[in-house]
Amino acid sequence: MNKAIAVDIGGTKISWALITDDYAILTRRQVMTPATTSDIFTALEVIITEALASYDDILGAGIGVAGMVDNAAGKIVAAPNLALAGEPLKQHLESKFKLAFNVDNDANCAVLGELLSGAGRGYRNFIGLTVGTGLGGGIVIDGRLYRGAKGAAAEFGHMVIDPNGPVCGCGHRGCLETKASGTAIERLAKETVVAKTKSALSRSVGGDPEIITGPMVAKAARAGDTEAVTIMTEVGRWLGLGIGNFINILDPEVVVVGGGVASSLDLVMDPIIESARRIVIDPRSRDIPIVISQLENSAGLLGAAGLIFGLEPS
Amino acid sequence: MNKAIAVDIGGTKISWALITDDYAILTRRQVMTPATTSDIFTALEVIITEALASYDDILGAGIGVAGMVDNAAGKIVAAPNLALAGEPLKQHLESKFKLAFNVDNDANCAVLGELLSGAGRGYRNFIGLTVGTGLGGGIVIDGRLYRGAKGAAAEFGHMVIDPNGPVCGCGHRGCLETKASGTAIERLAKETVVAKTKSALSRSVGGDPEIITGPMVAKAARAGDTEAVTIMTEVGRWLGLGIGNFINILDPEVVVVGGGVASSLDLVMDPIIESARRIVIDPRSRDIPIVISQLENSAGLLGAAGLIFGLEPS
Repeated sequence: MNKAIAVDIGGTKISWALITDDYAILTRRQVMTPATTSDIFTALEVIITEALASYDDILGAGIGVAGMVDNAAGKIVAAPNLALAGEPLKQHLESKFKLAFNVDNDANCAVLGELLSGAGRGYRNFIGLTVGTGLGGGIVIDGRLYRGAKGAAAEFGHMVIDPNGPVCGCGHRGCLETKASGTAIERLAKETVVAKTKSALSRSVGGDPEIITGPMVAKAARAGDTEAVTIMTEVGRWLGLGIGNFINILDPEVVVVGGGVASSLDLVMDPIIESARRIVIDPRSRDIPIVISQLENSAGLLGAAGLIFGLEPS
Repeated sequence: MNKAIAVDIGGTKISWALITDDYAILTRRQVMTPATTSDIFTALEVIITEALASYDDILGAGIGVAGMVDNAAGKIVAAPNLALAGEPLKQHLESKFKLAFNVDNDANCAVLGELLSGAGRGYRNFIGLTVGTGLGGGIVIDGRLYRGAKGAAAEFGHMVIDPNGPVCGCGHRGCLETKASGTAIERLAKETVVAKTKSALSRSVGGDPEIITGPMVAKAARAGDTEAVTIMTEVGRWLGLGIGNFINILDPEVVVVGGGVASSLDLVMDPIIESARRIVIDPRSRDIPIVISQLENSAGLLGAAGLIFGLEPS
């Protein structure tokens, strides 16, 4: 059975897997992401060498990268959290191995994973959002990933939605990512810890806003804590507003929400859906499904494998 | 030479033209838009009958409608300013004439006109905005109009960009259309007339905010009036912010701005471009061209003809 090496290079770790062409994951590992370019290259060479030594019928390696990627050139355009900016990753690996390589943005890979093996299967037009520390996404049009003219499409997190809002990591104000992401949950939690010293959230960290994290808020919300629920609801409302905008612009059949924060969003599906539907202009689109990904942290790896199985041109 | 009947049904007038397959306009007329559905149908039948009697080699009629259109069905989904909501326009006309009909949203037609015969020619991926009383648009992907799953894509005017902003005609707050359109120019002008009674704008209407119109503001701005320039600049900045968002989402090669207000926007190209570039996340996209349509009010008719010349499936 044909197989692909699937790699997901994030800011803190590199995950990789051997995946069959029917999208079964045979093996899966992870290593910490090295700090330098040459160490990242070495780590990738070790992974590929090990995979090639252990398995037959490997068609190639698909690589998702936490950054902006020129898919056609296999080059990393920008990568704020990773020592790969400007690197011709595909070209480098092709010089080391006689193997097909395909490099793409990690959010694109996650959405491709949903298309091939997740909540997007069977749809021709949909959008996927990955809500983690930041907010990314991908667009499927006519059954294929739409990358835009330069491979930079679907920068959903940097849609300005509140020009007077918080400053984003990108330097601008009021990007959706500042309102609907793990970072947004954490910012609101810090504000609550400081402003509401008697709240359970504040007491849980002894009043120190620097200690509180997004997962703590999600856990408290699940346990019914009022302040935590308020925070998650606000984030859900902004996410819904963003989704409503994307529906008005792209008219998809379904919206799939994945990423590290997604597993906590089931708590606030009602505000997400209500907020999205309220602004959708086409009455026929008000009830399109907005669903949480079921692939958890495998979406990116499945999509990276999909880059290899001939479904996406290099 | 093959020809198409091109019709553009707006809220106040119906324009129509005979257009050759190399996009020359042979004749062009307009009538007032009747108030009732049956009178609109009759007006269309008169136009088509007249065209068929006057010209040979007519392949069909392409019809742009100021409303939401199900292109595949040829049916009008919604039309706030027109007695055509819910009407199966294509089916009705097919029952009257042995001729090919293709019905689409007027903004889609305008963008198709830009693709076939305007500023979008030669590009594979671009977006077009039509700035008039409202704000609409269209998306070209891979050399074709992208209509979305239900034909409702590119509702650019209803991207919420300021959740605390003015109430939009659609009922929601802070849609881009409330900030960047003829309606926005007029709202800001009314505010100026009331708040700055000594301004030239206020004096020009004897202090009566009900009299001032968008074209008056554009004319005053062109003559150098400070308040009018301030209004146009603010509208330009919001339009630029919207365009920046669309670039982040769709990664086009070029952005074409048309519609009734477009001819006044050359005054504020700098704020438009500056405001768009400021939020574009891909450094490679910061200098993509943002251009004013040169087709004036022919874009929609040329695109309606394009619906017929085999470039777009029915």
